[in-house]
Amino acid sequence: MDVLEAEALKVYIRRGAADIEALLERALDVSDEMTPEVLCAAQRYALIAPGKRLRGVTVLACAEMLRGDRVKALPFAAAVELVHTSSLILDDLPSMDDATLRRGKTTLHRVHGEANAILAAVSLLTKGFEHVRSSSRALACLARAIGDDGLIGGQVADLEADGSVLELDRLEYIHAHKTGALFIASAELGALAAGASERDLERVRIYAKNLGLAFQITDDVLDVVGDPAVTGKDAGTDRDRTTFVDVCGVEGSHRLVDELIDAACGSIATLGKRAATLRALAEMVRRRDR
Amino acid sequence: MDVLEAEALKVYIRRGAADIEALLERALDVSDEMTPEVLCAAQRYALIAPGKRLRGVTVLACAEMLRGDRVKALPFAAAVELVHTSSLILDDLPSMDDATLRRGKTTLHRVHGEANAILAAVSLLTKGFEHVRSSSRALACLARAIGDDGLIGGQVADLEADGSVLELDRLEYIHAHKTGALFIASAELGALAAGASERDLERVRIYAKNLGLAFQITDDVLDVVGDPAVTGKDAGTDRDRTTFVDVCGVEGSHRLVDELIDAACGSIATLGKRAATLRALAEMVRRRDR
Repeated sequence: MDVLEAEALKVYIRRGAADIEALLERALDVSDEMTPEVLCAAQRYALIAPGKRLRGVTVLACAEMLRGDRVKALPFAAAVELVHTSSLILDDLPSMDDATLRRGKTTLHRVHGEANAILAAVSLLTKGFEHVRSSSRALACLARAIGDDGLIGGQVADLEADGSVLELDRLEYIHAHKTGALFIASAELGALAAGASERDLERVRIYAKNLGLAFQITDDVLDVVGDPAVTGKDAGTDRDRTTFVDVCGVEGSHRLVDELIDAACGSIATLGKRAATLRALAEMVRRRDR
Repeated sequence: MDVLEAEALKVYIRRGAADIEALLERALDVSDEMTPEVLCAAQRYALIAPGKRLRGVTVLACAEMLRGDRVKALPFAAAVELVHTSSLILDDLPSMDDATLRRGKTTLHRVHGEANAILAAVSLLTKGFEHVRSSSRALACLARAIGDDGLIGGQVADLEADGSVLELDRLEYIHAHKTGALFIASAELGALAAGASERDLERVRIYAKNLGLAFQITDDVLDVVGDPAVTGKDAGTDRDRTTFVDVCGVEGSHRLVDELIDAACGSIATLGKRAATLRALAEMVRRRDR
């Protein structure tokens, strides 16, 4: 099976991230000179930060695998990155994780205050919706990934669970929603941009579901063993929460990730060479914490 | 000029509010039994509360004036009410107005906690976007009313101004964005649902711009002279802010409202009898604080 070499994948990701970031820059353009400066500064601070743009790159890779037009997929890629950044700002708030560090920088509310952070997050989310307005189906897909059955449902469940030992189905619910939902939407949006068949949509959905969960597990492992200088966020902030490491241990988590990555790659196996980029992305997630 | 009698307007508003609330109820339906109960309860608490649904009714009245289909306009009416409720939740947060009372009830964050209030607000906003997904133009219109050039821009400017004496252009900026933007979007969405001409779109835009500002001024007056049992929110919370009453006095505010309501009615004068409902709505706003 064809898998892009690590170096080729790096180039692919860098190019994708650059294209997405060009759109994000345009999304930050200010048309009215009376718009409060702090609102613009806050959005820029959170949005333009080091990152692989993994969700956005997933949009592009899915679209290109399914012979879609990269130019049509780019706004959708920008949309998921806008939404992702918005959700990180909210997760970090004092009333939620009360985090100090994100993407290697002081968290937004500690720089620009809580109210501005909340309002910047909502504005970024709004910009995310604007970027999918060309397609009713894409908008429904993005909305589902955000709302009660997506990021927000997962975040509320996560906060509710704080400090208590979780049943496995609750832990899976939290991660499927906090992390999985936006990965799945990314893959779907790429497929929708390519005008994919229902069968191909289902394939990338399964790919992304497995990839998202694997990503979350590697996150849990990194939170235990990772260096904040590398992860760019506070270490051990999940201390009070049930994590996959608590349930499966580090070795068990690695085995679970292996299974999920194999399942992700299996779901797109019939696409052969065209799936090389998605396979390489999955392998990169597998190696994140090793 | 035809103006609906007060009683006929009350009936129109009650019927519109009931139709809109039927859609809001459906928007609160939960499809997944694992969705955290508190998330559903928080959204219901804030959304289903006494209120005239003035913005939603404006959508319907504009659509019907321009011979649009009420059924097509209803989701847009629900959208502006979802967005309006979302913005009220955020305005009331401890990091913003720190309000205790809204729509005659304890504010959401004091009942369900700050994190749940923020997340419920974002979920309601997301549902608002879902309700306009049939039209790319409607979505752009709603997004503009929310983002940097709308509610959020106005709210950031308002918080920034807290405690300082404002220039008149800054005061106008704040109100045009915090209140005006969603009124204008309501009128535009009604016109879009009716497939209106650009000329009619411009007419209802001018109507709503004047109505929104008049509404804000009556709000300022009510905040000084109003009874919390009637207004349903804390009295005198705007004490530290420059209000229209500070700048123009109560009498001057009344005169300004008269001018704005006359301008609102003037913009739709050529529509004759068909504009009777919008004229009656404007007259109702004129009398709010008298």
